[in-house]
Amino acid sequence: MDNFTFKNPTEIVFGRGMIKEIRSRVPVNVPVMIVCGGGSIKRNGVYAQVKKALKKHRVIEFWGIEPNPLYETCLKAVELVKKNKVKFLLAVGGGSVLDAAKMIAATAVYKGKDPWDILRTNGAGLKDALPLGTVLTLPATGSESNGNSVISRKATQEKLFFGAACVFPVFSVLDPVTTFSLPKKQVRNGIVDAFAHVMEQYMTYPVSAPLQDRFAEGILQTLVEVGPRTLRNMKDYDSRASFMWSATLALNNLISCGVPQDWTTHMIGHEVTAFYGLDHAETLAIIMPGVWMNQLERKQAKLRQYGERIFGVKTAKAAIARTEKFFNSISMPTRFKDYDIDAAEVAKRVSARFAERGSKFGEHNDITPRHIADILASRK
Amino acid sequence: MDNFTFKNPTEIVFGRGMIKEIRSRVPVNVPVMIVCGGGSIKRNGVYAQVKKALKKHRVIEFWGIEPNPLYETCLKAVELVKKNKVKFLLAVGGGSVLDAAKMIAATAVYKGKDPWDILRTNGAGLKDALPLGTVLTLPATGSESNGNSVISRKATQEKLFFGAACVFPVFSVLDPVTTFSLPKKQVRNGIVDAFAHVMEQYMTYPVSAPLQDRFAEGILQTLVEVGPRTLRNMKDYDSRASFMWSATLALNNLISCGVPQDWTTHMIGHEVTAFYGLDHAETLAIIMPGVWMNQLERKQAKLRQYGERIFGVKTAKAAIARTEKFFNSISMPTRFKDYDIDAAEVAKRVSARFAERGSKFGEHNDITPRHIADILASRK
Repeated sequence: MDNFTFKNPTEIVFGRGMIKEIRSRVPVNVPVMIVCGGGSIKRNGVYAQVKKALKKHRVIEFWGIEPNPLYETCLKAVELVKKNKVKFLLAVGGGSVLDAAKMIAATAVYKGKDPWDILRTNGAGLKDALPLGTVLTLPATGSESNGNSVISRKATQEKLFFGAACVFPVFSVLDPVTTFSLPKKQVRNGIVDAFAHVMEQYMTYPVSAPLQDRFAEGILQTLVEVGPRTLRNMKDYDSRASFMWSATLALNNLISCGVPQDWTTHMIGHEVTAFYGLDHAETLAIIMPGVWMNQLERKQAKLRQYGERIFGVKTAKAAIARTEKFFNSISMPTRFKDYDIDAAEVAKRVSARFAERGSKFGEHNDITPRHIADILASRK
Repeated sequence: MDNFTFKNPTEIVFGRGMIKEIRSRVPVNVPVMIVCGGGSIKRNGVYAQVKKALKKHRVIEFWGIEPNPLYETCLKAVELVKKNKVKFLLAVGGGSVLDAAKMIAATAVYKGKDPWDILRTNGAGLKDALPLGTVLTLPATGSESNGNSVISRKATQEKLFFGAACVFPVFSVLDPVTTFSLPKKQVRNGIVDAFAHVMEQYMTYPVSAPLQDRFAEGILQTLVEVGPRTLRNMKDYDSRASFMWSATLALNNLISCGVPQDWTTHMIGHEVTAFYGLDHAETLAIIMPGVWMNQLERKQAKLRQYGERIFGVKTAKAAIARTEKFFNSISMPTRFKDYDIDAAEVAKRVSARFAERGSKFGEHNDITPRHIADILASRK
């Protein structure tokens, strides 16, 4: 096991009817800004519950955070924060809204010249942010219990990541009932997203960390078990609750303690979304099996362990095939042709961008643009 | 799944050589008190590492916390805290030292008349304590990452528990190497203690919480796998590290999220220790199988799941038998006769004490002194 430090101070407030608990957790007597997306929270009753809980608070609203949240939008929100001397942010929505709120929180108190540097440096050295809480309405990204944020810039078609301890939410409310009205596609995306998060921290090479393996496998087993069930019955509380809790634990820094991490699939996926507009999870489902095939020899031991413990199959290749089959079983495509996209063109464009940046990825830090071109071309 | 809140702000600093990391984490320019046990940390080099890391800090030392730490000893430490205006405590030792430091931290700023009330009320309403950090040298209790403390009172032969958010350690350093010199008996005790902690949060009844089950089972599987190995080779880093991390995650409030808890075994065990002086873990290994047999019908579903997933056996009774066999395989007795103690006498004395208090235990809160007498008498 490798050395590690682990700290996750976010308070999780989980369950039916728990939104009312924000009343005692959001500071009173200071201006609070709620950060929202496109309006679904008005239709599903979440907005009304939040407003009711905060009826004695001073609340300003910012609407319009988009999927793959834009830097440009965050800057508009920061203007409103400054104008109103906002001291606390409450993000109400899915991962995009939460990620945007983190960027807004960091930018609002940023002392540097250009806030885009927060993303260009992946958050290195970032020490201050406005405190924020969240009400999560879409289980997927784990953003409710980590210090990570992914932000896109329209002007340059970039999609970059930052991470910092100062943007961990103070609290996050997770009420599975608020997710009953989601479109099936978003639930499917969330399952694949959480699944891929686990894999980026698990599908590497063994380092004598059996407990981390068991926890990662526990999340995978749970997603395989409750994922199809929650899609079949979109209002079944128990399967939705287990999916929601799985998505949080998939990316709250716990299962990565003391083990190597990969993240190649995510890095490639962000570029595919930036160029082609596929949903984040759609890119992961295409790319991940390709990364594994490309790195088959070095990931072999873990692939076999995974195949045996999750699907009861014996070989690394069978484990990859079963993963694709699982994705397909919840209506998630795994090939570019399913979107009428030319894999060869993706390979060329995306690898060129990584070549510009001189990027290297993976647990051995040696997956180059050439490998990435091979991976993408193979997913036709 | 039941509703829950979860918050664990302790920073874990894990691995070889990590004690030096306390330098930047312990506040400078205020008096700091290190709280220690009987001196083993002088023999194994931990004390020297701590002193080296804190050579620029203002350090006061308090020695003499005993196993099953005494209230009377804590009060002496509080005098020293007050006399020296100590602002931060650093507990260096095993669970007893950590538990005592929490009691000292709470008592030092306690406004009530009688600090014993902290224990009499199980910490209800406790809001303030001195901040504390820990350097853990004995994996077992999970005290390094929770707000729990168990304190004994010599004068009355009582052993009581309190829990409060304000006594979570700010940080805890876990270096597996510092545990290499432990006596085998203490490592064995730690394995059983961690195992029993998981069970108190797992062996109840199903509430559609598959992920919590998988995490609990993951810790159990890891203990079954690495427990015997770490006892066979007392200086094998990897198995000791996995045992140490398992013991932390066994009682850091995570696996209990959204599920019922039992704790009958612990409550009975505390009294057996108070009367007969058996080690905490020794009492658990005797009592736990008895509680399960007594509650066989209501714990049946979970016992079967556990038996099948951990040991590959089919019935609840086989699962209990395999648990005793596992304990015995690491030289842990499971019967009172192994200590020449008369089970009938234990049953009488312990159940009488619970009858005085009107205690009820278990996930259904209906295990009475009469059940407890039956359980204890059956463990002859």
